[in-house]
Amino acid sequence: MNTQLPSVLMSAERMADLAAASRILAARGVVDGFGHVSMRHPDNPNRYLMSRALAPALVVPDDIVEYDLGSNAVHPASAKGFLERFIHGEIYKARPDIGSVVHSHSPSVVPFGVASVKMQAMFHNAAFLAQGVPVFDISEQFGATDMLVCDCAKGQALAQSLGSASVALMRAHGSVACGPTLQTAVFRAVYTEVNARIQHFAHSLAGTAPLAALSAEEGLLADVPNQTAGLRAWDLWRAEIRSETGW
Amino acid sequence: MNTQLPSVLMSAERMADLAAASRILAARGVVDGFGHVSMRHPDNPNRYLMSRALAPALVVPDDIVEYDLGSNAVHPASAKGFLERFIHGEIYKARPDIGSVVHSHSPSVVPFGVASVKMQAMFHNAAFLAQGVPVFDISEQFGATDMLVCDCAKGQALAQSLGSASVALMRAHGSVACGPTLQTAVFRAVYTEVNARIQHFAHSLAGTAPLAALSAEEGLLADVPNQTAGLRAWDLWRAEIRSETGW
Amino acid sequence: MNTQLPSVLMSAERMADLAAASRILAARGVVDGFGHVSMRHPDNPNRYLMSRALAPALVVPDDIVEYDLGSNAVHPASAKGFLERFIHGEIYKARPDIGSVVHSHSPSVVPFGVASVKMQAMFHNAAFLAQGVPVFDISEQFGATDMLVCDCAKGQALAQSLGSASVALMRAHGSVACGPTLQTAVFRAVYTEVNARIQHFAHSLAGTAPLAALSAEEGLLADVPNQTAGLRAWDLWRAEIRSETGW
Amino acid sequence: MNTQLPSVLMSAERMADLAAASRILAARGVVDGFGHVSMRHPDNPNRYLMSRALAPALVVPDDIVEYDLGSNAVHPASAKGFLERFIHGEIYKARPDIGSVVHSHSPSVVPFGVASVKMQAMFHNAAFLAQGVPVFDISEQFGATDMLVCDCAKGQALAQSLGSASVALMRAHGSVACGPTLQTAVFRAVYTEVNARIQHFAHSLAGTAPLAALSAEEGLLADVPNQTAGLRAWDLWRAEIRSETGW
Repeated sequence: MNTQLPSVLMSAERMADLAAASRILAARGVVDGFGHVSMRHPDNPNRYLMSRALAPALVVPDDIVEYDLGSNAVHPASAKGFLERFIHGEIYKARPDIGSVVHSHSPSVVPFGVASVKMQAMFHNAAFLAQGVPVFDISEQFGATDMLVCDCAKGQALAQSLGSASVALMRAHGSVACGPTLQTAVFRAVYTEVNARIQHFAHSLAGTAPLAALSAEEGLLADVPNQTAGLRAWDLWRAEIRSETGW
Repeated sequence: MNTQLPSVLMSAERMADLAAASRILAARGVVDGFGHVSMRHPDNPNRYLMSRALAPALVVPDDIVEYDLGSNAVHPASAKGFLERFIHGEIYKARPDIGSVVHSHSPSVVPFGVASVKMQAMFHNAAFLAQGVPVFDISEQFGATDMLVCDCAKGQALAQSLGSASVALMRAHGSVACGPTLQTAVFRAVYTEVNARIQHFAHSLAGTAPLAALSAEEGLLADVPNQTAGLRAWDLWRAEIRSETGW
Repeated sequence: MNTQLPSVLMSAERMADLAAASRILAARGVVDGFGHVSMRHPDNPNRYLMSRALAPALVVPDDIVEYDLGSNAVHPASAKGFLERFIHGEIYKARPDIGSVVHSHSPSVVPFGVASVKMQAMFHNAAFLAQGVPVFDISEQFGATDMLVCDCAKGQALAQSLGSASVALMRAHGSVACGPTLQTAVFRAVYTEVNARIQHFAHSLAGTAPLAALSAEEGLLADVPNQTAGLRAWDLWRAEIRSETGW
Repeated sequence: MNTQLPSVLMSAERMADLAAASRILAARGVVDGFGHVSMRHPDNPNRYLMSRALAPALVVPDDIVEYDLGSNAVHPASAKGFLERFIHGEIYKARPDIGSVVHSHSPSVVPFGVASVKMQAMFHNAAFLAQGVPVFDISEQFGATDMLVCDCAKGQALAQSLGSASVALMRAHGSVACGPTLQTAVFRAVYTEVNARIQHFAHSLAGTAPLAALSAEEGLLADVPNQTAGLRAWDLWRAEIRSETGW
């Protein structure tokens, strides 16, 4: 029995979608044993929902816990949460336009956080990157740490680096991808990883020559269909999880 | 029940082959949630057939819609089509020799559309690339757009870039691969992706030294067996889909 | 019913091993719809055995055809053979020490046939490469062709390039890997591909600096355990096919 | 029936965990037909346990053999062991803090043993690399060999190269990853491979510019949560094996 029922009742379908998002990200190689996805509570913007600390591929709807924006579990009996849930809470605080956040260490993205090469939008599915991808270096403000965004202050610093972007890299750690909806945040996390692989290839071909990436204006225009026709990808991924789990 | 029955009756087997082609391309990593394959109507060269807007891995024969070359659905009740079906219609208009078109964003190919390195034929299975691979940059004629080939004018511009080639790259977007038959177009889409991976490796090894790629003459000669003995690959791929779907 | 029964009766187990070798190579990504493996007839050194023209993943023991060293089917009713079976026949003629040959276009190996970087042995499992890996360029002797080794003359030229090596690259085409036994030839084909991936990484790290590859002497010493303890890999791969096919 | 029962009775669960570790490493691509994992006997620090010579994907609990630190099987009737078990015995002798050792040829790691580029910690999960990763070149002390660490003297030389590090590379061969527990050694072997892939990408992006890798101090701090919260990865991997094998 779920002892972490959201205070405002969420539809079972939305809870299942959030649990499925964890498994989708695992199936696409964006998360492995680590990483997490959350969504802002649809009926209470000062709350968010995410799985208890658990490998994403194992999450079921009953694992979802409700947090306030200080990243405290609303229900004291809730299962142990992720150490880095503060990433989510602080982004929701700073960015009212954001409805969902993915944190991952997807392997093609990490290199862009340690090499001084800017991530660019290599194709229209990654259009959301064309506004620029900031890099958050936790050591600038906090010195030598265990690299984890494990409290509100570190979460705030990350949210500040993120600014108005959709994706921020975290030096020697990973990245966050955000969007207005769960579907869009998952889409962006997946295509940030795909884009990183493409840019690696492109950079290797081009050497020091510039890449004919999407311009900022093209990026704004091309991100619109990603959020409508682009839902076709979510439909595919969601169907795969449903056929595996039954929910 | 299929409400989009072709006006001239296609054999069930050919419809199944076209639907299978979508799944083959998904299984080979050429398409993901996006991308599409079409074939010219075998009994009416002014029509073409392709799936409704749907992730390629999910396509079944009943999803096939018939279009005129202006990319209007022949049957008004047809399901919603792909935004970029104009790619197909305009190539069929411009190229009577073409019987099938694949559009994809296969990840190893995209880099060649943003880096100024020509794609070359690295091995005989990619012989069709040896005549040259043009790059279509939508911004040259249309300025900043959402990158999509979403009307006849943009489709025509792409078809013009393609010229007499078998494959054209689309800057910061993807590519098209064409052939006289469905089987050959699918083969070319698959081996364009394989060739891109090989050229990436080869380029990385060779640096600025030239690659001993197929010459244009070798390409012409080597593409002949690809279209006969090469059908063995289609037979394998088709069998995989049949054993998965029953059709 | 098999209409291509070897003239000298092969044990069913050896026929199954040869058919399994095709599937092993497909499962390891060494062959795709194309490529083939043969073995010298164990009781008649002037004959060899290989599958009829068929995608390697689909081969069953009944697909095995017997050839003389001129690559003519011994039984006139035999099914159509591979266009490039002459690779095998001519290597068996030139190299009495060879008992099995694999021909493939494995994707990480092809780049070494078009870039002027020598393949080296990156680790002990690829020790057989340390004696040098010649590159056969079909155009040197035959001008512009379809790149296929489709007759005895071309097969002889390839065998001459191979010399006393275990592996030869074929420019803009693929490679051959040979060994005294079926198990060793398959092992070498697999680890040639693995070695190519490793060398690509190593080359990319090292730039123009030399790699601390196996020396020729180390290669000779290290290839000995590959042919004894190394059979453990065959046992694993063979078991996988057995559990899939029942033979 | 297991004829190699540990002299001091191990719990069935721990034996199963050790057998599962072999399969986990195979499933993650760290080992293929070759490679091995051992653990120090929990009740007798002068003994260690590892599978008989067998492909890691096939290991079952009954395959576990008990060795003394000279790498002699404790039970004379034990099945044939790995030629390179001396790697394990000599590391246990030299490093009382080590409870488990993995030896592998994981393909992204091998390049760092032949190219003169230092492996660095690209992200917090690979924090254990931030203290430095020594390279053991067997030829320095032993001249041309078959590259195998097949006796105590070679094992001692490797252990000496390892020093106080968690991971050592072996030139033109592979690597060892060590940890206080089985779970941590497996974690380190997996993330050494992931880190190598990331560093390859990062190096390719950065060229000769330095990478913003974890500092030694960050590495010490970040390796702590890897050994607590990081167990979540083991739980996922172990569950996968359990659902496959029933143990």
